[in-house]
Amino acid sequence: MQTSPLLEHLMQSLRSLPGVGPKSSQRMAFHLLQRDRAGGLRLANALLQAMNEIGHCEDCHTFTEQSHCNICKNPKRQENGQICIVETPADIHAIEQTGQFSGRYFVLMGHLSPLDGIGPADLGLDRLAERLTEETISEIILATNPTIEGEVTASYIAQMCESKGISATRIAHGIPIGGELEMVDSMTLSHSFAGRIKMNR
Amino acid sequence: MQTSPLLEHLMQSLRSLPGVGPKSSQRMAFHLLQRDRAGGLRLANALLQAMNEIGHCEDCHTFTEQSHCNICKNPKRQENGQICIVETPADIHAIEQTGQFSGRYFVLMGHLSPLDGIGPADLGLDRLAERLTEETISEIILATNPTIEGEVTASYIAQMCESKGISATRIAHGIPIGGELEMVDSMTLSHSFAGRIKMNR
Repeated sequence: MQTSPLLEHLMQSLRSLPGVGPKSSQRMAFHLLQRDRAGGLRLANALLQAMNEIGHCEDCHTFTEQSHCNICKNPKRQENGQICIVETPADIHAIEQTGQFSGRYFVLMGHLSPLDGIGPADLGLDRLAERLTEETISEIILATNPTIEGEVTASYIAQMCESKGISATRIAHGIPIGGELEMVDSMTLSHSFAGRIKMNR
Repeated sequence: MQTSPLLEHLMQSLRSLPGVGPKSSQRMAFHLLQRDRAGGLRLANALLQAMNEIGHCEDCHTFTEQSHCNICKNPKRQENGQICIVETPADIHAIEQTGQFSGRYFVLMGHLSPLDGIGPADLGLDRLAERLTEETISEIILATNPTIEGEVTASYIAQMCESKGISATRIAHGIPIGGELEMVDSMTLSHSFAGRIKMNR
């Protein structure tokens, strides 16, 4: 017996969030109603605005509510001349948190996957090709995921760059910092051997 | 460097939900934007409606968008004559899931706590007293939490019932089903001895 259809509907809707099941959705709904109605309303408005207004940046295809995202608009980032290719906007977040990279990005929103019918045009690679011609780019850094599809996508883009005489690099794969050698899978270990760097002259 | 202020605002707002930290809020925001914008809009509307329209039932004080909740309005529930006293609307959900109880409820929205300045009037006990006089009630079942405050609240209501000649019972506390005796804390174990039931005649 339901005491309130609206409450049931709220619990059901909360389950659209990843990782939220029946118990958590119940806890969330009661928490907001009992202790934080203002937070609930703020969340509702933030969701409405974000879902309706956030589109893709015309240059790099990341999520933004403007025609060009803040990174693409930044003159310092433009001078840098490096473009980092990633699969998703979440990857940009992760890279920005390192503070190591000060160039611009290009988001594929996926990877090449002929079996699923995802070809170069679906990843906006025609737009990337235009940028390679129009802009003065010093280096393309390929930061796609270390999966088969990610590697294929990286190779494809590296060939595109080669035909235009632009240097393309791939981020290093190997033992994660703080990881223990004996715990690392053999695929990663063989990558770390193949990608070894000279330590003396 | 933020790519989108709206996206940052969404991530921040998602942290109003209990158990959602920086990593989960990021995962939720990107999931909704990339894969389930319809679900995000549905959630926004469910939140708006719930936060604005859900109030308290006039009879039992649980959450409902109507003047009286569906349980209080149900004639079969009214005939039953039992009223179960709980601390929060979430407790009603838990009890309803057992399918064991077919009476009505009364939600205190808390417990007596003189140190925090929460007295009988704050729990709506004046309204409960009215109901004890107005309605024909066969039994008050006290299902407040087994904490000190919950026990005090239960005793207080039991005395109210006594003065009106209404039977008040307390739900049993003891070993949970499937629990192992050696794992149970001594407080629970002593309750289960004090509350033992005769098995033969």
